Amino acid sequence: MTAARFEHALRVYWEDTDAGGVVFYANYLKYFERARTEWLRGLGFSQEAMRLQDGLQDGVMFVVSSTSVRYLSPARLDDLLQISVEPRELGRASMLLFQQAWRGERLLAEGEIRIGCVASGALADFKPTRIPAALIKAIKPF
Amino acid sequence: MTAARFEHALRVYWEDTDAGGVVFYANYLKYFERARTEWLRGLGFSQEAMRLQDGLQDGVMFVVSSTSVRYLSPARLDDLLQISVEPRELGRASMLLFQQAWRGERLLAEGEIRIGCVASGALADFKPTRIPAALIKAIKPF
Amino acid sequence: MTAARFEHALRVYWEDTDAGGVVFYANYLKYFERARTEWLRGLGFSQEAMRLQDGLQDGVMFVVSSTSVRYLSPARLDDLLQISVEPRELGRASMLLFQQAWRGERLLAEGEIRIGCVASGALADFKPTRIPAALIKAIKPF
Amino acid sequence: MTAARFEHALRVYWEDTDAGGVVFYANYLKYFERARTEWLRGLGFSQEAMRLQDGLQDGVMFVVSSTSVRYLSPARLDDLLQISVEPRELGRASMLLFQQAWRGERLLAEGEIRIGCVASGALADFKPTRIPAALIKAIKPF
Repeated sequence: MTAARFEHALRVYWEDTDAGGVVFYANYLKYFERARTEWLRGLGFSQEAMRLQDGLQDGVMFVVSSTSVRYLSPARLDDLLQISVEPRELGRASMLLFQQAWRGERLLAEGEIRIGCVASGALADFKPTRIPAALIKAIKPF
Repeated sequence: MTAARFEHALRVYWEDTDAGGVVFYANYLKYFERARTEWLRGLGFSQEAMRLQDGLQDGVMFVVSSTSVRYLSPARLDDLLQISVEPRELGRASMLLFQQAWRGERLLAEGEIRIGCVASGALADFKPTRIPAALIKAIKPF
Repeated sequence: MTAARFEHALRVYWEDTDAGGVVFYANYLKYFERARTEWLRGLGFSQEAMRLQDGLQDGVMFVVSSTSVRYLSPARLDDLLQISVEPRELGRASMLLFQQAWRGERLLAEGEIRIGCVASGALADFKPTRIPAALIKAIKPF
Repeated sequence: MTAARFEHALRVYWEDTDAGGVVFYANYLKYFERARTEWLRGLGFSQEAMRLQDGLQDGVMFVVSSTSVRYLSPARLDDLLQISVEPRELGRASMLLFQQAWRGERLLAEGEIRIGCVASGALADFKPTRIPAALIKAIKPF
């Protein structure tokens, strides 16, 4: 059984490029994050809602703890990219995702992003905490 | 007769926010530009294709010559925004566009963006040049 | 008597440029803000300290309410820029600053930035509030 | 014998933070690059000058081919950071650099950045090319 794969399409704009005429490499981290956000949204989870505390319990927030990216081929202004998300490991307070950026049949960049779940709020100071059970349950089938 | 109006939808991601918990104001200029790019694309014009020179003639590029923006209400993570484009003046080498950012019925930001057409290419050095006739023709009905 | 003028020097890096080979215009708003931050720091005010609430009173935060910028000449990778700050109006809850970006003797961009003072904190929701008296006093001589 | 180590100081501004109240992780790639640029400048090499072609030979440009970063502790608005650069491998057309971000005695992020040297120019299309001999010679003592 292969892991399920989520895809998010996005367009390259002027803001994304640099004087080399191509997408500035740091921006692939932004593209990967947009795809993760849409993946979570597709599973029914809004990060802004998760982050805010309600009367009963503290909010949680995801923080990136490591990124490892290989840049294979440049993207240019106006390119339409497909950004993928594939969960590779799912722990109690962290997960590892494999992500790729494609333009048509061409792989442009790929990498592993490790994400930790922390308590949100001014006083919480990024204390690691469990990923909400409902989210674990939603990701598991992947 | 009111001017025609183009709209582009976009989502607010982590990359767009700042420590105030809302969208960093400079990013509305990026949002406005994405909408202008999609507006041009909708009219049949790719900026990357326009920028590149071909055998017969030099390429052209749009540069922003002034921006005037009022920030009325903050946008937050996960918000879905509508960004509008309305041409207000159309000259031979420049145009003035009125743009707004909305979240549902709430106006978040608005402003005027003046854009000039310049010759592209390493040697061209941003020399003002005429907006391609085909583009003028496509915008005029607005 | 001319108004006093603060200057902050900064360097143009790859991250600041776009595929046109020059500084992406929206980044002048970032440059202007860095200069305002250093201007406040020079007057003895750290925004992070001001933002955080202490036991006695709520924190305050500055938000940009409007920006009006003219882009006159492009900056390029490796350029060393001088960014100026000149207070033009100082009200109880807002101020207007005139700012310029220079490379040597050449003026690259200039504009007016209006800033409002708001209560900080998750519940404060950007309610306008008075600029701290000590800061008003520090700016006045300008 | 330990490798020589270059350090560049920079300040955290509003533009660098996100709604979590800390520096957006992708921005450490920008910080690392600013330090590399200052390191090259300190060795006598301006990237903008290297990129531009002269009558005798084509220009060269550095492109990032991979980044691997661990984010250990968050930086906040107004923090003063020290960003280090240490060459770890120096090949004919690429090099590997180890970089860290410190706030005082606290390590915030660290990683390896692999950089390739390519021909610059519109037609060059990122063809790998040798690192200029003079630059190799300047780095070697490290």
